[in-house]
Amino acid sequence: MRKLAVYPGSFDPITNGHVDIIERALCIFDRIIVAVAHHHGKAPLFTTDERFEMVKELTKKYDRITVDKISGLTVDYVRSHGARVIVRGLRAISDFEFELEMALMNRNLDSEIETVFLMTSLQHSYIRSSLVKEVASVGGCLDGLVPDLVKLKLKEKFSC
Amino acid sequence: MRKLAVYPGSFDPITNGHVDIIERALCIFDRIIVAVAHHHGKAPLFTTDERFEMVKELTKKYDRITVDKISGLTVDYVRSHGARVIVRGLRAISDFEFELEMALMNRNLDSEIETVFLMTSLQHSYIRSSLVKEVASVGGCLDGLVPDLVKLKLKEKFSC
Amino acid sequence: MRKLAVYPGSFDPITNGHVDIIERALCIFDRIIVAVAHHHGKAPLFTTDERFEMVKELTKKYDRITVDKISGLTVDYVRSHGARVIVRGLRAISDFEFELEMALMNRNLDSEIETVFLMTSLQHSYIRSSLVKEVASVGGCLDGLVPDLVKLKLKEKFSC
Amino acid sequence: MRKLAVYPGSFDPITNGHVDIIERALCIFDRIIVAVAHHHGKAPLFTTDERFEMVKELTKKYDRITVDKISGLTVDYVRSHGARVIVRGLRAISDFEFELEMALMNRNLDSEIETVFLMTSLQHSYIRSSLVKEVASVGGCLDGLVPDLVKLKLKEKFSC
Amino acid sequence: MRKLAVYPGSFDPITNGHVDIIERALCIFDRIIVAVAHHHGKAPLFTTDERFEMVKELTKKYDRITVDKISGLTVDYVRSHGARVIVRGLRAISDFEFELEMALMNRNLDSEIETVFLMTSLQHSYIRSSLVKEVASVGGCLDGLVPDLVKLKLKEKFSC
Amino acid sequence: MRKLAVYPGSFDPITNGHVDIIERALCIFDRIIVAVAHHHGKAPLFTTDERFEMVKELTKKYDRITVDKISGLTVDYVRSHGARVIVRGLRAISDFEFELEMALMNRNLDSEIETVFLMTSLQHSYIRSSLVKEVASVGGCLDGLVPDLVKLKLKEKFSC
Repeated sequence: MRKLAVYPGSFDPITNGHVDIIERALCIFDRIIVAVAHHHGKAPLFTTDERFEMVKELTKKYDRITVDKISGLTVDYVRSHGARVIVRGLRAISDFEFELEMALMNRNLDSEIETVFLMTSLQHSYIRSSLVKEVASVGGCLDGLVPDLVKLKLKEKFSC
Repeated sequence: MRKLAVYPGSFDPITNGHVDIIERALCIFDRIIVAVAHHHGKAPLFTTDERFEMVKELTKKYDRITVDKISGLTVDYVRSHGARVIVRGLRAISDFEFELEMALMNRNLDSEIETVFLMTSLQHSYIRSSLVKEVASVGGCLDGLVPDLVKLKLKEKFSC
Repeated sequence: MRKLAVYPGSFDPITNGHVDIIERALCIFDRIIVAVAHHHGKAPLFTTDERFEMVKELTKKYDRITVDKISGLTVDYVRSHGARVIVRGLRAISDFEFELEMALMNRNLDSEIETVFLMTSLQHSYIRSSLVKEVASVGGCLDGLVPDLVKLKLKEKFSC
Repeated sequence: MRKLAVYPGSFDPITNGHVDIIERALCIFDRIIVAVAHHHGKAPLFTTDERFEMVKELTKKYDRITVDKISGLTVDYVRSHGARVIVRGLRAISDFEFELEMALMNRNLDSEIETVFLMTSLQHSYIRSSLVKEVASVGGCLDGLVPDLVKLKLKEKFSC
Repeated sequence: MRKLAVYPGSFDPITNGHVDIIERALCIFDRIIVAVAHHHGKAPLFTTDERFEMVKELTKKYDRITVDKISGLTVDYVRSHGARVIVRGLRAISDFEFELEMALMNRNLDSEIETVFLMTSLQHSYIRSSLVKEVASVGGCLDGLVPDLVKLKLKEKFSC
Repeated sequence: MRKLAVYPGSFDPITNGHVDIIERALCIFDRIIVAVAHHHGKAPLFTTDERFEMVKELTKKYDRITVDKISGLTVDYVRSHGARVIVRGLRAISDFEFELEMALMNRNLDSEIETVFLMTSLQHSYIRSSLVKEVASVGGCLDGLVPDLVKLKLKEKFSC
């Protein structure tokens, strides 16, 4: 059971920071489910299907990774898939309080599910999906921020 | 004068963390006005009247508590009711900077009104109204997060 | 080249904290361009033209200051104007992580452009444009928060 | 019972920030005991007696203030004096985590004793006893940092 | 390889927070080495041997745990024992920056070794060994803070 | 006057992070004085002369840099050398509150002297002199942390 971990997120879009966490998680766990969440509140730039497809494409080289979509509670998803571990990335700057709050809420919802935090590389520590979208919206260079596939998709979005 | 304190908030909805602060404030002050604020900016889930009614119902057992609605500046309300103290909760995680900023702005608006911070219980420290609403919106268990009355109201909101 | 610095922001509206940073920057640099940015995401209270005009009026007494509007990437603007320095204010409370994130993103976009942080006065450290707008929207006193010109403009906005 | 509060600290030496908190606490509580603690760990600059005498001298004009020395647990002292409230100052910069940790530890030791946080004035928010001692040790100007009496005592210490 | 993790610390003394992390780590990893470090800088209260013995005694019921002493670099120890994972606890309050700094330094020293952060229970989030020692030194109640064995050892230390 | 800046610190020892800040400052200011401070409080590893010599050796290639020793107040030194700017580095992780506190204290001591913050490179953001000394004390690899000269000096210190 301990060998399967779920990495949930909205991935709107997936960045090099997310990819970094996925690769680190592969060194710790036997199997990873990347769970693309519906976006609560504000409208996402990419639809759930678009986000799912990008993650799927970018992780298809790893046979120990499954990509899925989730819409309910993360802990319910984790439990129903026989996992007990949620993986989350910590960026050297910020995120910390939000991540702890989420992890504590999840622990309250299901005390047997553990959140494991991995630290992104320093060079990814300032990459946030929302900042990436801002840069893309004004035609800024996306090198080093997102994979090439995502670069293309961002350009499509902002040229229409 | 020092015996009356005002506890302002949007209470959308009131959580167990808010109730915790109210009960702690009752040990320090003689009388508390819980002041349900109009929600600036984003639309609240519950109307001001609904939020007011929930707070009123949940605090009716305490005869030293009054519940009211406010729409203007908190400091004006406090002063016009003969109080000089604003009570705010501090959660072990986060909130701190936002709370200090508000308190400093209020002190700038009326230097004679003091903000007193009480610390929520650890077990309530990850409870935020917005997170509660997110959990409720996907049908998650609300035990330990909000009073039973609020649980019912949340279920009503999200089943329609 | 080192003598010109760009101070970008949305200035919606310009506050005494911004004016404070501008005056401090004038002691360090020979010439300052205050660059009024288009507001990404949420709608601003004042149009870009209104924000530009307020900043222009308030800095016209300094002949070493130019005011401009920008819509693309800040680093592109900086470079195309022959500058290499971005000035940003740090408030004693908060801002820090957001500012570092922006500065690191900008450094990634153009590694030759440096962000220089100046610290606002303590008495301005709780002033945020969004908080100022909240106070103005309920008719609160704006003394010490914004210049007189901005006070008038805020009153106009909120009385219609 | 709720009218008596204890303000504990090492006061090595008492600063204008401490005096500010004492005066704010006097607006909230009927009676304050300022409790000068033995310094655990590193050697203090002033002996407990010296620190006690300075606090006593500086608060003698307030008949609602008592000054005392404590050596055991703060919560035991508070309880044995019939109080239920500990007062602590929060500075706009820093302190927060340390203060919460102490308050949570104290709540663990005696769950009926409440810690109430008051916020220092902005102009005192960077004043820490240890920084004051550093400035004094190199003959720096102490205006605005400590009361005149403490200035004299610091000069005596550092001129021998 | 991924099944072995090293949990390093000075454990001066081991607290309920440490025990909590050990038990959480046992749910994620197959085998844990608890590595009792020599204390750099300030003198520890307990000798390395005493700290080692306490950890050993308290974890002897878990056959998947080994206890060891380390004096050199943590990453060298981890690598030489065929592990690639360092486990560290994150407390809901504080620690964060120090832990990230250590993890980044360790990643710099050996990029193949990953630090995995687990979150302590809320009820342990204010427990720090140094605070425990302070409470013990003035005869405070240690219930809930440390295991019974450590309580005894602390009492011995402070009664001599 | 604005063209000269002072970069004070204890540099015990100078790290790659310090060198990074010095080089960034050279792009902003015409002339930099690196001011090696006496170490208040805890004993430094290197004497003031040793620290001064290392900084001098490492910056001798820059003719716009002067190295000096200071023992009194930084602001007095700055003013007496005709400068009005103090340069300090901000690391992406931590430092922030300490740096603001120092800057506010310095502004209190001399309101005409401005502190300018530059941000270290991400890859230097976890480098602190004290952590470097800890790594060196157990024979850890210092590549990327300090200049070669400092590596040698650290090895000498820890092999005696």
